[in-house]
Amino acid sequence: MKVFRIKHNESIFYATIEDNIFFKPLLSKNNKKNLIPVAECTILPIAVPSKIICAGLNYHEHARELNMEIPEEPMIFFKPPSAIIGNGDKIVIPAMSEHVDFEGELAIIIGQTGKNILPENVAKHIFGYTCANDVTARDLQKKDKVFARAKGFDTFAPIGPCIETGITDPNSLSLRTIVNGKVRQEGNTSDMIYSPAQLISFISHVMTLTPGDVILTGTPPGIGPLSPGDEVEVEIEGIGILSNTVINYESIRTPVQ
Amino acid sequence: MKVFRIKHNESIFYATIEDNIFFKPLLSKNNKKNLIPVAECTILPIAVPSKIICAGLNYHEHARELNMEIPEEPMIFFKPPSAIIGNGDKIVIPAMSEHVDFEGELAIIIGQTGKNILPENVAKHIFGYTCANDVTARDLQKKDKVFARAKGFDTFAPIGPCIETGITDPNSLSLRTIVNGKVRQEGNTSDMIYSPAQLISFISHVMTLTPGDVILTGTPPGIGPLSPGDEVEVEIEGIGILSNTVINYESIRTPVQ
Repeated sequence: MKVFRIKHNESIFYATIEDNIFFKPLLSKNNKKNLIPVAECTILPIAVPSKIICAGLNYHEHARELNMEIPEEPMIFFKPPSAIIGNGDKIVIPAMSEHVDFEGELAIIIGQTGKNILPENVAKHIFGYTCANDVTARDLQKKDKVFARAKGFDTFAPIGPCIETGITDPNSLSLRTIVNGKVRQEGNTSDMIYSPAQLISFISHVMTLTPGDVILTGTPPGIGPLSPGDEVEVEIEGIGILSNTVINYESIRTPVQ
Repeated sequence: MKVFRIKHNESIFYATIEDNIFFKPLLSKNNKKNLIPVAECTILPIAVPSKIICAGLNYHEHARELNMEIPEEPMIFFKPPSAIIGNGDKIVIPAMSEHVDFEGELAIIIGQTGKNILPENVAKHIFGYTCANDVTARDLQKKDKVFARAKGFDTFAPIGPCIETGITDPNSLSLRTIVNGKVRQEGNTSDMIYSPAQLISFISHVMTLTPGDVILTGTPPGIGPLSPGDEVEVEIEGIGILSNTVINYESIRTPVQ
């Protein structure tokens, strides 16, 4: 089931799509009456997390590409919720950086609160999966060593287009990142060092996971830079395509306060 | 004005305290009628942030103590909102770590959304200030290099006891951390490398700040380890004392899921 987060009049809710022309609210009882034409809705980013936790260096091939050792334990970092944008929204290259990379990733959306979750018990804590782009200012990541600024700019966490709730085995999904129509990353989640279940378990032994939290599971080899005007797509088998275009900070007017 | 976040019956609201025995809701019109006995209320952690942004290495003396160079720009990292506890709550030493340190800090609570804020315009974006403890698993920080796990455990972000809204100059406040009655850190915010105004401005040029967001401004020299049974207090001039006791993970029963 593909789940979208939409706004209709002043209400925000999760909904499935029917025949590509109607949204059906997830919690509605009366199916007929509650079909809403897609044209009347705004599609929002699919989650409002209390936190976004990301795994670094989680594909064998990517570790080899960077000539880095495989981490003994998952290496985790955060992106702030303010970085989230949805499918079709624009990635903004910030004034502080001259090298912004794409990183296509499978993302997990948490559906139920959990702490100290065992790997064999993760299923009930998962709402579903989506596509994500762990946009990174590579020059600032190198300069800062810590990742918060480099990974934390507004618009640096595109996720979407929907939450796919029907994936029972996330361990063999093909994933591609396409820039301006050209395939730049091509991988399979079977190459992950720590599986989604292992990541959820590890993270939940550090911190309580709550509904809407997002976990980015790492990127396969082939990461590369983005320029204004680029269209970047992250496509994952069984989920769909997350598409965003890139603009420069100068082309938006953010009021200085 | 000292502001608390309290729960009374099923309502949660901000309130000031009167004569130490009544809470007065901040947004109430009828003062008399709305005085609530303190004994009827639960005092909650003072903020529910969308993010906690921390400055690393922000006191000259602390940089000298660690023999580290002064950073060219503020060095920032995140703690997750799930780490927050309030005054009187317990810091839990996790199973993964054998060396957990206290770090007493001044914290800023954001009151108004802002992006690209100039240092001279920060005042209107500040709700107030509080005491914080940037509890850190030092062994994991050294192991991981990145800070997310080491700084991100549940209970690792004590803040409180209240939000002081009356501080107009945060640049000369004395700050002490006291463990079991013995002063362990003693500093003054005048020793900061980047002032609260400079930090807010810098961070807001990376990410949008929203009401309730918390900024930790770095720690003075004297950080040290905590053990189960310790009482750790962070005291800041004009704000008050944040007090927490330390327990081991084995003394709480977190259900394994």
